[in-house]
Amino acid sequence: MSLLTVGSVAFDALETPFGKTDKIIGGAATYITLSASYFTKENNLVAVVGDDFPQSMIDDLNQHGVNTEGLEVRVGGKTFFWSGKYHNDMNSRDTVEVQLNVMENFDPIIPESYQDCQYLMLGNTAPSIQQMVIERLGKRPKLIVLDTMNLWIEIANPDLMSLLKLVDVLVVNDEEARQLTHEYSLVKAAAKIHTLGPKTVIIKKGEHGALLFKEDRIFFAPALPLEEVFDPTGAGDTFAGGFIGYLAKTDDISFDNMKRAIIYGSAMASFCVEKFGAERIMNLTQSEIQERVSEFVKLSAFGLA
Amino acid sequence: MSLLTVGSVAFDALETPFGKTDKIIGGAATYITLSASYFTKENNLVAVVGDDFPQSMIDDLNQHGVNTEGLEVRVGGKTFFWSGKYHNDMNSRDTVEVQLNVMENFDPIIPESYQDCQYLMLGNTAPSIQQMVIERLGKRPKLIVLDTMNLWIEIANPDLMSLLKLVDVLVVNDEEARQLTHEYSLVKAAAKIHTLGPKTVIIKKGEHGALLFKEDRIFFAPALPLEEVFDPTGAGDTFAGGFIGYLAKTDDISFDNMKRAIIYGSAMASFCVEKFGAERIMNLTQSEIQERVSEFVKLSAFGLA
Repeated sequence: MSLLTVGSVAFDALETPFGKTDKIIGGAATYITLSASYFTKENNLVAVVGDDFPQSMIDDLNQHGVNTEGLEVRVGGKTFFWSGKYHNDMNSRDTVEVQLNVMENFDPIIPESYQDCQYLMLGNTAPSIQQMVIERLGKRPKLIVLDTMNLWIEIANPDLMSLLKLVDVLVVNDEEARQLTHEYSLVKAAAKIHTLGPKTVIIKKGEHGALLFKEDRIFFAPALPLEEVFDPTGAGDTFAGGFIGYLAKTDDISFDNMKRAIIYGSAMASFCVEKFGAERIMNLTQSEIQERVSEFVKLSAFGLA
Repeated sequence: MSLLTVGSVAFDALETPFGKTDKIIGGAATYITLSASYFTKENNLVAVVGDDFPQSMIDDLNQHGVNTEGLEVRVGGKTFFWSGKYHNDMNSRDTVEVQLNVMENFDPIIPESYQDCQYLMLGNTAPSIQQMVIERLGKRPKLIVLDTMNLWIEIANPDLMSLLKLVDVLVVNDEEARQLTHEYSLVKAAAKIHTLGPKTVIIKKGEHGALLFKEDRIFFAPALPLEEVFDPTGAGDTFAGGFIGYLAKTDDISFDNMKRAIIYGSAMASFCVEKFGAERIMNLTQSEIQERVSEFVKLSAFGLA
C-alpha cells in the first residue's frame, strides 16, 4: 500500500570519534523514505528544500523509488542545516549549529496523486505542521504514525496534545516518553500516552532495543549488539522507516505484524549506524536485510525445554 | 546436581523512595541460594556470620532446603552489615555504611559433604577468597560461575586476573564489563573477557535485560518491563541464583540451555524487586515462576511471516 512521509530533508555536518563530514544529505524524512524504500514501492515524500539542494541527491531518492512530486524546491531559499558532534560514548551529542532556513515556514503541499495514501508517517517536525498534513488529506489514512522530540514537548506542548488525539502510533525514545508523561516507569508512561490518543506506543531505547505497547500487550525487540557504532545519526528515523515500510508492504496492522515490523525497523537501524549519515542505507540489498533479520531471530529466540 | 554457593550472608538496611527498612537479611549468597532453592534441592552454602545472626533466619534458609552446614557462626563476631540509599530513578545508589565485621577474615571452610558439588557459584566477595574455595575443592566442579564487582576490579585486580583463568562463566553488569576491559562496546568487552579465561560471559544491564556471550554466539534476554521497582537490592544475585539453579537442576551446560537458564534468572530477578530485600523470593510458588517465565516468552516471541 502507499506510504506518505512528511518531514525534513536537510544537510547535516557530523562529527563522531571516528571522523567528520562536510555537508551530507540528512533529515528525518530522508532516512525514513530511504529505509521504507526497501519495503514499499509507493513511497511518497512531502518536504521542502532550498535551491542549494543538489539535483543529484533528488535523483538518489528517485532511484530508490521515492516519489518527490511533493518535495518543494524553494527558489531563493536555503536548505535546513544541522550540525552535531557526538561524545565518546555515542549516546549523547551536542548540536553545534541549526539553520532552519526553508523549514521556518514549511507549508506542506500534498500533491493530488498522494491523496489516497494508506500509511502516513509524520517525521519529526513542528506538531502544527504535522497536524496540517492530516487536515490536508481528503481521507484519513489507515494508519498514522507520529515521531516527535523533546523540543516540541517543551515549546509546543498544546499543539502536540492536540495532534496526539489524531494519531494511531507514537514513536519516541525513553527520555521523551518520560518527559511527555512525567512517569519514570516506561510501562506507566506508555499507559499515560494511550490516554492521550495513540493506541500503540513504541519506545526506542537505542542500544537497549525498543518496546511496543498496545493496550495491555507488550513486545520487546532487542537491538543488535554491535562492535562499533560509527555514527548514530538517523538511526531512529531509519527504524521508523523500516517499521512503517514493512506495515505498508504487508498491509497488516495487527499486533503480531507490528512485532515483525519492529524487528525489520531494528535491522534497518543496525545498518544505519555502520557508516556516516545515510550512506549505508543508500546501498543495501534485500539479502543483506534478510540476513540481518535472521541475526535478530538468533539473538532473541529461546525454547523452553 | 548439587550446587555450592559461596558469598556473603549479611544484614542490610535499605532506603528507597518507597520507604526504609531496619536490619533485614541480605548478602549475595542469601539471594543466590534462596533463588536457586526453587530449582535444586542440593543447595549448599558456605558463608560466615556473627553470633548476632538470628537462628530464625538460618531456619528460614533451611526451610528453603539450603544446607547450612558450611555456614560458620563465629562466636563473638558481628555479621557483615551494609546500608544503602537508592536515588529516585532506582538505577543508582549510595552506600551509606559498610561494616565488614566477620567478612574481614572470612576463611571459607568446605564441609566434607560438599566436596563432590558439580556446580559452584562464587558470589561477590574478595577474589582471593573465591579462589581459595576452588583450591579447597578436591575435584573441579563441572561449572564454575563467578560474580564480582567494581571494587575488586579496582583494588584487587591481580587477584581477579588470576581467578578469571579458573572460571567458566563470568557474570558482571555493563559498567563492570567496561571497567574490566576498557572497552565501551559490550561485544568487544565480552571478546576481551573470553581471552582472560571465562568462555562464557553474562553481562547484566538491569532494566535493559542481559546478554549471554559464548565464543561467537550472542543471546539477548529482555528484562520484564515493570510498573514499579520497589527495591532493586539483590536482583543481580537473584538472577545468578536462578541461572545456576536452573543449570544444576537440568545438568545441561549447552548454549541453548544457558539461554533458558538466563530467562529463569531474569524471571526470578523480576520478583526480587517487587518487595524489600529477599521478602518476595522467600515466598514464591512454582506456578508463579512458570507464569512469569511465560510472560518472558510473550514479551520476546515473534514469528517471521
